[in-house]
Amino acid sequence: MNANLVAPTPSAYTYPLLVKQLLVNALSLHGDQEISYRGEMRYSFHEFRHRIGRLASALSALGARHGTTVAVMDWDSHRYLESYFGIPMMGATLFTVNVRLSPQQILYTLNDSDAEIVLVHADFLPVLEQIKAGLKGVLQIVVMADGQDAPATPLPLAGEYETLMAQASPDFKFGDFDEQTKAATFYTTGTTGDPKGVSYSHRDIVLHALVASTSLCAQREGQRLHREDVYMPITPMFHVLAWGLPYVAVLLGLKTVLPGRYVPEALLKLRQSEQVTFSHCVPTILQMLLTASQEDPPDLSGWKMIIGGSALSPVLCEAALARGMDVFAGYGMSETGPIVSLAQLPPGFAARDPQEEVRRRCSPGRPVPLVDLRVVDEEMRDMPRDGRGQGEIVLRAPFLTQSYFKKPEASEELWAGGYLHTQDIAVMTPQGFVQIVDRIKDVIKTGGEWVSSIEVEGLIAEVPGVQECAVVGVRDEKWGERPMAFVVRKAGMELDSTAICARLLEHVDSKRISKYAVPEADRIAFVSEIPKTSVGKINKKVLREQSL
Amino acid sequence: MNANLVAPTPSAYTYPLLVKQLLVNALSLHGDQEISYRGEMRYSFHEFRHRIGRLASALSALGARHGTTVAVMDWDSHRYLESYFGIPMMGATLFTVNVRLSPQQILYTLNDSDAEIVLVHADFLPVLEQIKAGLKGVLQIVVMADGQDAPATPLPLAGEYETLMAQASPDFKFGDFDEQTKAATFYTTGTTGDPKGVSYSHRDIVLHALVASTSLCAQREGQRLHREDVYMPITPMFHVLAWGLPYVAVLLGLKTVLPGRYVPEALLKLRQSEQVTFSHCVPTILQMLLTASQEDPPDLSGWKMIIGGSALSPVLCEAALARGMDVFAGYGMSETGPIVSLAQLPPGFAARDPQEEVRRRCSPGRPVPLVDLRVVDEEMRDMPRDGRGQGEIVLRAPFLTQSYFKKPEASEELWAGGYLHTQDIAVMTPQGFVQIVDRIKDVIKTGGEWVSSIEVEGLIAEVPGVQECAVVGVRDEKWGERPMAFVVRKAGMELDSTAICARLLEHVDSKRISKYAVPEADRIAFVSEIPKTSVGKINKKVLREQSL
Repeated sequence: MNANLVAPTPSAYTYPLLVKQLLVNALSLHGDQEISYRGEMRYSFHEFRHRIGRLASALSALGARHGTTVAVMDWDSHRYLESYFGIPMMGATLFTVNVRLSPQQILYTLNDSDAEIVLVHADFLPVLEQIKAGLKGVLQIVVMADGQDAPATPLPLAGEYETLMAQASPDFKFGDFDEQTKAATFYTTGTTGDPKGVSYSHRDIVLHALVASTSLCAQREGQRLHREDVYMPITPMFHVLAWGLPYVAVLLGLKTVLPGRYVPEALLKLRQSEQVTFSHCVPTILQMLLTASQEDPPDLSGWKMIIGGSALSPVLCEAALARGMDVFAGYGMSETGPIVSLAQLPPGFAARDPQEEVRRRCSPGRPVPLVDLRVVDEEMRDMPRDGRGQGEIVLRAPFLTQSYFKKPEASEELWAGGYLHTQDIAVMTPQGFVQIVDRIKDVIKTGGEWVSSIEVEGLIAEVPGVQECAVVGVRDEKWGERPMAFVVRKAGMELDSTAICARLLEHVDSKRISKYAVPEADRIAFVSEIPKTSVGKINKKVLREQSL
Repeated sequence: MNANLVAPTPSAYTYPLLVKQLLVNALSLHGDQEISYRGEMRYSFHEFRHRIGRLASALSALGARHGTTVAVMDWDSHRYLESYFGIPMMGATLFTVNVRLSPQQILYTLNDSDAEIVLVHADFLPVLEQIKAGLKGVLQIVVMADGQDAPATPLPLAGEYETLMAQASPDFKFGDFDEQTKAATFYTTGTTGDPKGVSYSHRDIVLHALVASTSLCAQREGQRLHREDVYMPITPMFHVLAWGLPYVAVLLGLKTVLPGRYVPEALLKLRQSEQVTFSHCVPTILQMLLTASQEDPPDLSGWKMIIGGSALSPVLCEAALARGMDVFAGYGMSETGPIVSLAQLPPGFAARDPQEEVRRRCSPGRPVPLVDLRVVDEEMRDMPRDGRGQGEIVLRAPFLTQSYFKKPEASEELWAGGYLHTQDIAVMTPQGFVQIVDRIKDVIKTGGEWVSSIEVEGLIAEVPGVQECAVVGVRDEKWGERPMAFVVRKAGMELDSTAICARLLEHVDSKRISKYAVPEADRIAFVSEIPKTSVGKINKKVLREQSL
């Protein structure tokens, strides 16, 4: 067979897709654009590029080279954004440490990742001090004093971030290398087993940025991004590269606001003072923003916000829409880039009833360009796109994690049959809208039926007086499993379990759910809070343990 | 050195960037979207996919396989769009034949490209008949009767397009292969030497589509593309893949209108009946559209149009804006994908004077994402970005032609020093706007000064009574070269050369041009038309010969 490949002339530049290429026009066209840290300090994209050079020079002096893993433990800051670029651009790997994990888990991930250098905010020094004895590969620790005096610590420090930056040259020469070079790594916060290391290549990051940009910008109006938006992430920068959107913001030359540690009042203030128009966060944060702004409500109108991480409930979506926010869901996982679908309303969308637009905005939406998203049965056959046929979401896209670090079996399981398995059970509508039914492991098998824990949660959330709830399956001798609900009451509201049962039975009458989906009254527990994982998802593992 | 590459698990799908991937969501999300041919027939994206399968099956039956070059000679049609996808998707190479070349040039390109199969519209059969004896590699000829009876021809025909399609299976299995596989080829219509073969890989086409989409969609309002646009190319589909925009349209799921042979009245009718909102063309076509619609003027407002191929003059731009069209220039060449910059107004743009917006819209604009566009001197040093320092535009981008077919010397010249040389002389403003001064070979060297032929053309075009003009350098014993102008008068207008000289001397007084730029009165020739190349550019080679 004639391979029929294009043949570069010897002098041709073959252009690997590298993180540094995202900066080319950010600098030449938007050099005066601003990066703001908490509204307290700001600098230009030009200065940003100089600081990226300084960071690479400083890390070089500490021994970092092509292939070195450099860990970062920080709040969302300009320093983090510098690391997003400077560390990969020098051929090193950026490791975004999940600072909400336990010290022992952090120790595990630092050792498993072979991190050699750690850039650590003073707030997290105590964690490092605690795990110091167990650290195997870490040779250098750089503290980020964040404008304060560097705190006293028994750890051997290589220096303070700003001091090292000031001493380093901005003229680091960023070379070319293979686009499959590992640019970033982090750990999935699965609820079972050890955290698993995920990584992305330069090519993955560039393609994800282009695909996400295309999809976000292409919307005619609303639910879109454009060159005049002001961007502020409210998904931690350690969390799947803040969904890849800081790279999109720099690529498009957007003013970028890094909010530091998340404090709802401070976020709301920044939104106003910096005129933020585009953000993304998990539902818990959105709920906090709405709650914090209830009294003397600031103007939230026009604030576009992608919601992901866990399901956006219709109640929360409506509350945000009522405040004028343009909220819509996105879907993805640590292993998927992450953005593989967005709940943008399709061209010509006309809601049949007032609830339909809300349902659409709350769904994972429709796949973005180049993403082959299928809903399949256990033999990998496509389910009918009728909004009813349930199957697992499996994926192909040009930016998916190719394997877990040092975990060949889990990697093969992830990619069984050549598609990435999300373990999310979903249905798809004829228009390509995906609706998650449940996680494979959270589906409740009762009396021969499958009950979606998420669907029951949604219906309970609609009951007046419910602040938040979670449903898990618990062992039952007769039925195999039965649903059990954990409910947080709204402050000052009366509510008992029979009222919840009564409301759910109405949905049985209207055929919305099966009678098996209604928990017995004694399997509805009122609690003061729902346990969450480090990234704000309901921790069903803990709930299952509590229900034993 | 630790190469530090991501390591795919054996079952992982490594996702080559292939043309077929542009279809994934076009089909799953926009399967009911329409493709219209001249408004006379239309089918859905679903049907489009079936026809792509049939085309590949039919070509297979004729012997096409991975690496075969399949030539297409057609007006802009749904058949051409099918070829854009079906031929590359089967691993073959689509050769878009420039049907405006002379029969001898067409013969040269068919032989040079090693084309084995030709799909030819009945209108172009006479050309093939004429060159039949010289055809070396062509084994199969498929005629496209375009709804008529297939004409009688002495050529041995393999069949008629629709007949072969009807007999072929839609279920062709499009496999995966190297993303560097040659997807498309065509010939540059340079004014010197033989036409040179240019090719693009699957990766080039996909990346160009993503980058063009991102840039076109990201604009806040105006000069932008979005998911509800209706697309109609008015740049021939043989011309640099119609600037890559049919791929963008399918990627975004846009209604796509193929206008057949370009007839201004028919184009205007289609614009109205199909509610076209987004097009692209060369200035000559725009001029024809405006002229054809002068009487009983149809509504052109809101018609977004990228102008490229040659410079958009301020006069023409103003005329289009006055009709409500949203025209703006793009820049690129056969070798560059082609789109490397777009004249989108930057965020916050506020014109200092009424002419400034027009000037901006007429300029090549600013580089699109990932494109490293430099203006350099002969030693490849960057010129100051002050709007005055003249140098050559050189480029790096992830979708540039890597070599000319069978032309190693020309290929090395194109890529000298690792940057693609455009041979366009330009200046760049501090905001990154590029302004072309001239082609390297069209600059007029006179009395030790360099005079831009384009600048003089622009000033002559402003003189009342001038319909069109062209300026070239002619040999002069005393001055080396002198400018010579060819001018077409507007119908019924009086105009002589002294009037033109007088107007140009005013610009000398105001320091806009040097006195050397003003042609002598006897070097201003009035002609009935300006010779054009096959793609509508001024043919300066012919003018230089006429002026000898």
